[in-house]
Amino acid sequence: MSFEESLKRVIGRIEDSLGIALVGMDGIVVEEYKRDSLVDMQSLGAEYCTLLREIDNISLNYGLTKEFSVTTDKIIIILKRINKDYFLVLAIDSEGNFGKSRFLLKRESEVIEKEL
Amino acid sequence: MSFEESLKRVIGRIEDSLGIALVGMDGIVVEEYKRDSLVDMQSLGAEYCTLLREIDNISLNYGLTKEFSVTTDKIIIILKRINKDYFLVLAIDSEGNFGKSRFLLKRESEVIEKEL
Repeated sequence: MSFEESLKRVIGRIEDSLGIALVGMDGIVVEEYKRDSLVDMQSLGAEYCTLLREIDNISLNYGLTKEFSVTTDKIIIILKRINKDYFLVLAIDSEGNFGKSRFLLKRESEVIEKEL
Repeated sequence: MSFEESLKRVIGRIEDSLGIALVGMDGIVVEEYKRDSLVDMQSLGAEYCTLLREIDNISLNYGLTKEFSVTTDKIIIILKRINKDYFLVLAIDSEGNFGKSRFLLKRESEVIEKEL
């Protein structure tokens, strides 16, 4: 199965999703899929990669960062780490289903991990 | 009601909680309460304050950051913004109840907001 299918499957099941990307720890997007053309998954991938590295540094005593999420007035971003080299980043509307998004990201990250 | 009572109330209701702090946007802890003496709420407050500022900068187009959370192998950290000057930061065990923690933080941040 292609990465694109995995990304579409997550987006397709979350009503208020805006976009999703598979990103390397160099900040470069491997694959992306979006519903809302205004969401820039390339920038998001690069910025969240930098954040993930900082969080990894801060959290050294607590083991590897597996997930992090940011909620603002307008958007929710969820980053799900796949392995030490890749992560998924998902953008949904701030009114979107946070729990379902986390669940789907976790499940799909396991599928993608086998393909990487 | 004192801030300490608010913090104790959150910690008391989350079985796997480790510590909580009320922190200013200067990174300085106003009040803290912890169950696990190994968790350094002062460092956590300062580090997460820096992260929050960075996330605010990244998220400029998406409005103010209201919440963010980090899950590692050993710990979950949830930051809940109270207003532009203060936030709560909660540490729970990685197996702890994430949903309940978010709920209690939201409720208590509204109580604290009135007292600030």
